[in-house]
Amino acid sequence: MVSDDLVIPWSEHKNRIEKVRRRLVKSRLGALYLANPTRILYATGFAHISTERPLAVVIPREGPVFMMGPLLEFDHVRQDCPLIEEVYTYQDYPGSLHPMRLFAKILARKGLASSRIATDSFQGAEGGWGYRGPSIAKLMKETKFLDGRDIVDNMRLVKSQQELRLLRESAKWSQVAHDILLENVRPGSSDVLVGLKASFEALSRMLRRLGRRYRQLKWGLSPVVVGFRGQVGPESAIPHAVFAKRKIRKGDVLVTEAGVEIGGYTSELERTVIVGEASSKSRRYFQVMLKAQSAALKAFKAGVSCSRVDDVARGAVETSGLSNCLRHHTGHGIGLDGHEPPWLDPGDRTVMRAGMVFSCEPGLYVPGYAGFRHSDTIVVTRSGMDFITEYPRELEEMTI
Amino acid sequence: MVSDDLVIPWSEHKNRIEKVRRRLVKSRLGALYLANPTRILYATGFAHISTERPLAVVIPREGPVFMMGPLLEFDHVRQDCPLIEEVYTYQDYPGSLHPMRLFAKILARKGLASSRIATDSFQGAEGGWGYRGPSIAKLMKETKFLDGRDIVDNMRLVKSQQELRLLRESAKWSQVAHDILLENVRPGSSDVLVGLKASFEALSRMLRRLGRRYRQLKWGLSPVVVGFRGQVGPESAIPHAVFAKRKIRKGDVLVTEAGVEIGGYTSELERTVIVGEASSKSRRYFQVMLKAQSAALKAFKAGVSCSRVDDVARGAVETSGLSNCLRHHTGHGIGLDGHEPPWLDPGDRTVMRAGMVFSCEPGLYVPGYAGFRHSDTIVVTRSGMDFITEYPRELEEMTI
Repeated sequence: MVSDDLVIPWSEHKNRIEKVRRRLVKSRLGALYLANPTRILYATGFAHISTERPLAVVIPREGPVFMMGPLLEFDHVRQDCPLIEEVYTYQDYPGSLHPMRLFAKILARKGLASSRIATDSFQGAEGGWGYRGPSIAKLMKETKFLDGRDIVDNMRLVKSQQELRLLRESAKWSQVAHDILLENVRPGSSDVLVGLKASFEALSRMLRRLGRRYRQLKWGLSPVVVGFRGQVGPESAIPHAVFAKRKIRKGDVLVTEAGVEIGGYTSELERTVIVGEASSKSRRYFQVMLKAQSAALKAFKAGVSCSRVDDVARGAVETSGLSNCLRHHTGHGIGLDGHEPPWLDPGDRTVMRAGMVFSCEPGLYVPGYAGFRHSDTIVVTRSGMDFITEYPRELEEMTI
Repeated sequence: MVSDDLVIPWSEHKNRIEKVRRRLVKSRLGALYLANPTRILYATGFAHISTERPLAVVIPREGPVFMMGPLLEFDHVRQDCPLIEEVYTYQDYPGSLHPMRLFAKILARKGLASSRIATDSFQGAEGGWGYRGPSIAKLMKETKFLDGRDIVDNMRLVKSQQELRLLRESAKWSQVAHDILLENVRPGSSDVLVGLKASFEALSRMLRRLGRRYRQLKWGLSPVVVGFRGQVGPESAIPHAVFAKRKIRKGDVLVTEAGVEIGGYTSELERTVIVGEASSKSRRYFQVMLKAQSAALKAFKAGVSCSRVDDVARGAVETSGLSNCLRHHTGHGIGLDGHEPPWLDPGDRTVMRAGMVFSCEPGLYVPGYAGFRHSDTIVVTRSGMDFITEYPRELEEMTI
């Protein structure tokens, strides 16, 4: 018997579905129609690979939760997800009859044709990879479709105890992976090979320890991802670099990233690392970055607005005269998606609540020279915050 | 100096942009507005990580190609993409002024407010990861937005000589990776660890050989991905499995996958593999699958419809009395996206042209027992097809 302690238990998914239904009743809605895979996973626990083939899960106000999707997911959902009680399939996309026309028929047969349906996609499908089709909203002229993205997304804002447990387990293995990464870096290393090797070694260790308790829910070569994502030397000044243009050299500033998927949830751990010895120049940027992160970390607290944390981080950078080095805001919510609302941004006045989880990652970037960014994942508490990632942050500890 | 032979050269991107412009002139359109990262990559050669932050590239009928996006991509696009001549940025999302309002202002300043704009997103943004915002189409009431997805997507259907070269290079390394994968599988192996190890070893070999000629354009732990994606034993009957529920055992049927990104392009190589000795049962399914794939491979030819290839494969399975084992159509176009139109499906009457590239992968699935699928990538020719993936297909060769 496989233990289920490293995923969200079915009981919690049941509660989530019940919460959706209460919202449907309250808003006099007939159903919630979900096409986004993250929202489907959050609500039902069903993880699937989203492609050009339309797939939707419908939570009606009353009656069984059902899925409409491609035949190739039939056995999958039957085997993996007891909460999706009925499954309607089409042979494949595009098919002789377009799947969206079938979806419209099924919704009508379910008595939803003249109801109000909340949805996260007026199109009715994720629409990836060259998908084309008539929108469900246009096919069902008598049905009133309303934007229902927030029904699930608002539930995702404050994490449950089990979600926090999964995020902490994720962080634990991210830390192991990050240690292994640093042990393997040396001048002359290819950043992508070091990252892949460290990911392999950390995953080996994790699977040895967790055994069959561990289940990967998200598609990917490895549920443990650690590396540099191209942020090597001058390329570290590009926050969203992909690939390093050269090998790691002595004196390089590197920016790392580590994330491990546990039950669908991933924490974020990133560090600025110096190879060899920090120059006075890199030392200065590193210290200002660290000061900004420390200030931001102190600003978290239930009742405080998200924008306030960003103000504090930006203020610390401005005081140091480096505001021209800013390229992005201070952080983002994190959970099932790698980035999710709310945002630590001047434009987000959301008031933080205990249980909200954020990355905290003010960064400084000097084009042609280097980038400086630590990212930690934290959970907001009534009195401040707790670290989810617990990892050294000082320059001496990050010099290798 | 880094050689550019493993990416699409700028001259080819320039031609693509010119082709877009000719289409704009012909259709009396003022501009093409692209939000989808694959289309942006195809047109301009700019590869970026798509997030909640809106980013669009606009190709006007006349005047410079410009990007509107987050500040964190400014240095990136400046450094990596000479064809995007102007860059307009916002501080971050959501910001004090919503980025989409800025985009609308920029388009107006560019004189496009009262023109007809083709777009791949009426929303104006990819809209991932909790993005919210007013749609560009609603913000610009005097502008006529039209569906412009096919302007780029139709250009992607027939591959150029250089695209085929990149796909062949991809296949070459997929084959190496697949060899290494098979050398490492044994009873008791964890499929994900074997896959990750083989990916590492194949990437090491590839980078040793290609050196700085190689550049990864797509975000990911490794540009070489080889493994089983959970398709181990009974789980191989789930075509879109993610993670194996147990270790590999003697007698298991496994389904592999190998893909390597070269200049943004990925070929697809998948094999059904038997651990130990094939039983008469697995032998039968394997042979019918092979017969169906062989029949489909013979059906490709310029001038033949896509649905015909699917008919032929399905026919071969039906003749063998196993049509209840079908779960999906015969294949899909492939190139910059892992799946792209056209589809080898009863619903796709597209007439094949020389230079179109497809996966050919009829599959048989027996719930609770195993799945059987080979996938090869081929290019359509005037007289038939050429393999892009060249790899053994027979049972004896795939028994390990």
